[in-house]
Amino acid sequence: MTNPKDTIHDLRAILFDVFGTVVDWRSSVAREVTAAAARYDLSVDAEALADRWRALYQPAMSRVRAGNTPFVVLDVLHRQNLDQVLEEFSLGSLSESEKEALNHAWHRLDPWPDSVAGLERLKQHYMIGTLSNGNIALIANMAKYARLPWDVILGAEIARAYKPQPQAYLGSAAALSLQPQQCMLVAAHNSDLKAALDCGFRTAFVERPFEHGPGQSTDLVASGHYDFIASDFVDLATQLKC
Amino acid sequence: MTNPKDTIHDLRAILFDVFGTVVDWRSSVAREVTAAAARYDLSVDAEALADRWRALYQPAMSRVRAGNTPFVVLDVLHRQNLDQVLEEFSLGSLSESEKEALNHAWHRLDPWPDSVAGLERLKQHYMIGTLSNGNIALIANMAKYARLPWDVILGAEIARAYKPQPQAYLGSAAALSLQPQQCMLVAAHNSDLKAALDCGFRTAFVERPFEHGPGQSTDLVASGHYDFIASDFVDLATQLKC
Repeated sequence: MTNPKDTIHDLRAILFDVFGTVVDWRSSVAREVTAAAARYDLSVDAEALADRWRALYQPAMSRVRAGNTPFVVLDVLHRQNLDQVLEEFSLGSLSESEKEALNHAWHRLDPWPDSVAGLERLKQHYMIGTLSNGNIALIANMAKYARLPWDVILGAEIARAYKPQPQAYLGSAAALSLQPQQCMLVAAHNSDLKAALDCGFRTAFVERPFEHGPGQSTDLVASGHYDFIASDFVDLATQLKC
Repeated sequence: MTNPKDTIHDLRAILFDVFGTVVDWRSSVAREVTAAAARYDLSVDAEALADRWRALYQPAMSRVRAGNTPFVVLDVLHRQNLDQVLEEFSLGSLSESEKEALNHAWHRLDPWPDSVAGLERLKQHYMIGTLSNGNIALIANMAKYARLPWDVILGAEIARAYKPQPQAYLGSAAALSLQPQQCMLVAAHNSDLKAALDCGFRTAFVERPFEHGPGQSTDLVASGHYDFIASDFVDLATQLKC
């Protein structure tokens, strides 16, 4: 069994998955979809649209990971997926500026209630940053909107690779001139944590049982040997004695 | 004559040169040089060593800019230059770990007295970030040390180009998904500001008459047509109505 005092020896940076772990993308995107549709006197199942838009996220990145398309930032992939989803949901008549504004809904996601308070505590003792597939503009705008106090923005755009590719984790640690074991990934997703673990990162699972709405069936529990398992960011800060 | 209200129309991000503009590198580096030499019972003209180390900065970057060496981060160039300077100042006997620690003096530079207060005000109204030749680890560690409240770290490592190459400015704006005219560079150096101006950035000159010590003879006054000329960051915040 891991002793927490050993676990955190020489830990320098705590890096966070963002979508679902720090922010509630589903409710936030659905809210903006509802508002956009209302401006056109259209009704829409906004949660279903948000789910469908998110479902196209991994396939789009897979094409980049496979080398079938050159690296492009997530805003570009989100927009390609949005165009498809709007057609599927009979919202293709939205104006170009309305579509572009809706694509930026991902820049205005609400944090989970504990996120800011937990991050503020962790920031007092560690470098805190993002290790997200979101691009720099998206993450920076979201931080201003949601008051997320990041010290540094890392992840896909810095590493030119999408998680769970090893380069996304290793390139982020390298940008801080740190060894992987000096970094910890915090995520609500087992697949992300397992990939980070394979790269030598420390890991912390945080429960986000409503990321996918009330009927969520995935990632309800930690399924790997992580250094920490926490109910939220405030609990994680307490476990880390911050 | 430029009307400030027109000048700041659609201004979104204020990006800062760092060495000399935000932080006092000369005094801070000299302090660490003095301490390192004292541990070896050696005396040294620490300001002269700091000046010499800094004097090798542009030539080292010039080799990268010219394509004679592939892009490497500033920590690497600083270390190459340090090894040369320590020999010149008869400090080559310092241990490897002492040299590495001294190289990281650039991660622990003190801010000018107005820097944090001015940045805090500007941050309330604009995205604030770095557009420095310093690498991400250097700038992030310095921000923790000096409590500089950056929203985003941009510059050479993001753009894979050293200022004053246009790509350093244009790549930083692009990482925020902004047009150059939506960004303003703040610097105490006319050459940096002129390069940013040529890229379409807004510009602000801030006076730092003691960056190079009491006998400074360069960059004492603004020599270009900049949008703002300020005595310090607090003055800049006031001019920008922050």
